[in-house]
Amino acid sequence: MPALTNRQFRLKTRPTGRVSRDNFEWAEEQVPTLGDNAVLVRNVLLSLDPTNRIWMSDVDQYMPPVQIGEVMRGLGIGRVEESNNPNFKKGDYVSGLIGWQDYFVADEKSLGYVSKLPSVPGVPVEAFAGPAGMTGLTAYYGLLDIGKPKEGETLVVSAAAGAVGSIVGQIGKLHGMRVVGIAGGDEKCNWLVKELGFDAAVDYKKPNWKAELEKATPNGIDVNFENVGGEIMQAVYERMNLFGRFVLCGLISGYNDHNDEKSRLSLVNSLMKRITIQGFIVLDFAAKNEEAVSQIAKWIAEGKIKYRETIVDGLENAPEALNQLFDGGNIGKLLVRIEKVPAKAGA
Amino acid sequence: MPALTNRQFRLKTRPTGRVSRDNFEWAEEQVPTLGDNAVLVRNVLLSLDPTNRIWMSDVDQYMPPVQIGEVMRGLGIGRVEESNNPNFKKGDYVSGLIGWQDYFVADEKSLGYVSKLPSVPGVPVEAFAGPAGMTGLTAYYGLLDIGKPKEGETLVVSAAAGAVGSIVGQIGKLHGMRVVGIAGGDEKCNWLVKELGFDAAVDYKKPNWKAELEKATPNGIDVNFENVGGEIMQAVYERMNLFGRFVLCGLISGYNDHNDEKSRLSLVNSLMKRITIQGFIVLDFAAKNEEAVSQIAKWIAEGKIKYRETIVDGLENAPEALNQLFDGGNIGKLLVRIEKVPAKAGA
Repeated sequence: MPALTNRQFRLKTRPTGRVSRDNFEWAEEQVPTLGDNAVLVRNVLLSLDPTNRIWMSDVDQYMPPVQIGEVMRGLGIGRVEESNNPNFKKGDYVSGLIGWQDYFVADEKSLGYVSKLPSVPGVPVEAFAGPAGMTGLTAYYGLLDIGKPKEGETLVVSAAAGAVGSIVGQIGKLHGMRVVGIAGGDEKCNWLVKELGFDAAVDYKKPNWKAELEKATPNGIDVNFENVGGEIMQAVYERMNLFGRFVLCGLISGYNDHNDEKSRLSLVNSLMKRITIQGFIVLDFAAKNEEAVSQIAKWIAEGKIKYRETIVDGLENAPEALNQLFDGGNIGKLLVRIEKVPAKAGA
Repeated sequence: MPALTNRQFRLKTRPTGRVSRDNFEWAEEQVPTLGDNAVLVRNVLLSLDPTNRIWMSDVDQYMPPVQIGEVMRGLGIGRVEESNNPNFKKGDYVSGLIGWQDYFVADEKSLGYVSKLPSVPGVPVEAFAGPAGMTGLTAYYGLLDIGKPKEGETLVVSAAAGAVGSIVGQIGKLHGMRVVGIAGGDEKCNWLVKELGFDAAVDYKKPNWKAELEKATPNGIDVNFENVGGEIMQAVYERMNLFGRFVLCGLISGYNDHNDEKSRLSLVNSLMKRITIQGFIVLDFAAKNEEAVSQIAKWIAEGKIKYRETIVDGLENAPEALNQLFDGGNIGKLLVRIEKVPAKAGA
């Protein structure tokens, strides 16, 4: 095999505010010869997630931050190009922490961060970078394990047209809930109601959004799936019902500026209404991933869960693309395409 | 029976800040002739609780606030003087919502707010106004049902020398936890460690209390039983461990001035560490009261749960006495003695 060049984004400086390409060093290094049991993965799709922004900051978090000089951490999908490992063969698709680079050279240790994609008829490879991947699992565990939905209850989800939010709402509908999404702009709101079957969508960019939220939740709110923080979180919190569940998935509005103020709530309401506020991270439920992925893939294959992708072409555009998550630029799953997936793969 | 006079505190104005006797009308009315199935209760002990202050305010809460002109709502213990009801006989002790008055005239409806005290050898009647009453049940359910303690975990309880806190810590010890109490002053801290068996007590009136809290919780904090709010809550929150449980029982530091600021926390920590913040009210668990009271009474009789009372004599002193809860004046259960309990009763 000829020498391969691996283009990589390595973290150079920690961003203040928005992410820029200047925060990274663009390195080009040769792919090394594979050791025993190692696997060479050609990265295909990079998943852009709000948590990427957290990883870039030197703040307390659920994993160590990416260190200066390290390849930027990122989830994604790749295809095995070469394997010295009996568990992987050329052509297998894998997903996991492949990093912001062209190739992921997985030794025995880093192989623990990827897993082989199942092949499910009707579910394309790309879906495993979104609804059938960590994104969908985040929605699934957050709503079902933390939110504990009951039929007839009202669910509100913020960033509802985002990768996680759009799946949360649909899983809520599959469990007989009244589902209200909060999103910015007509296009997103229409998609939620007309395509995904949400009962209502509230456009937070409209001046009367609080009144709209009230109208959309006449019986109050039993489960909140929080992705955003700030004023939207506050408004939802005030409408929570007795024994409501407040699922903390993300607080994206404060990630760029570490604005703690946007993440603060008075606990008086939680006390008086016995609301449970609970944070979670998808990794906490890893032991159940196989079962959960198979359930979600089934829903996708049956057309019960729909999804959209916003795809940005070219690894080199990853840093700028990440900002879309914070600007509300994307609808559905935001992906960077490093290499085109053959149409037939996995489908 | 000669006509009996019932002295009552009726709410006249809603307090701003501390409670004063001027917030009440002192009414004296004649006890009416008992109707069918009614019961006349001579009030003996009034339980003073932080929640009394909430009931006086016209704010969102877990029960309707006391209305202007109504007898002040209050828990306590009384003795049946006269009964037209086959379930109660003269001399029975009852506990429940007897109100700030000399006599509680219970018709069929209001009888639902009191229940007969069990007679447990070794447990005096007074205990049912404190550790074996709503106070103890609050500690019991909050720690066991919400806090879900595990052996070897670290429990922190604020207002630890208070009626609820002192029981929480002892139940924590009975479940094999490391127990750290936060209280104000040497007398309280010594009581916690030397009498009640807490592993450590942190005196929040000392300038170095945060360093002391750190020293007392070398392995972080798994369960926080929150009674206070404000700076103490913040310091504890920052030391919570992964998957910690943050039991919201009270936020007393903000009750007098409705200071929301003292009840606010950033949810970032809850997200990153997957902390569960959960409010509860003792009434939520009423279905299990019989079993729980019997367990607590057993612990008291066996000397495994100790308690203290701060007793103020005379119904007329109830309003001023209530402020002790907010000033840190009382140790253990704060009671107003309306009539002396015979030493032998129930014991």
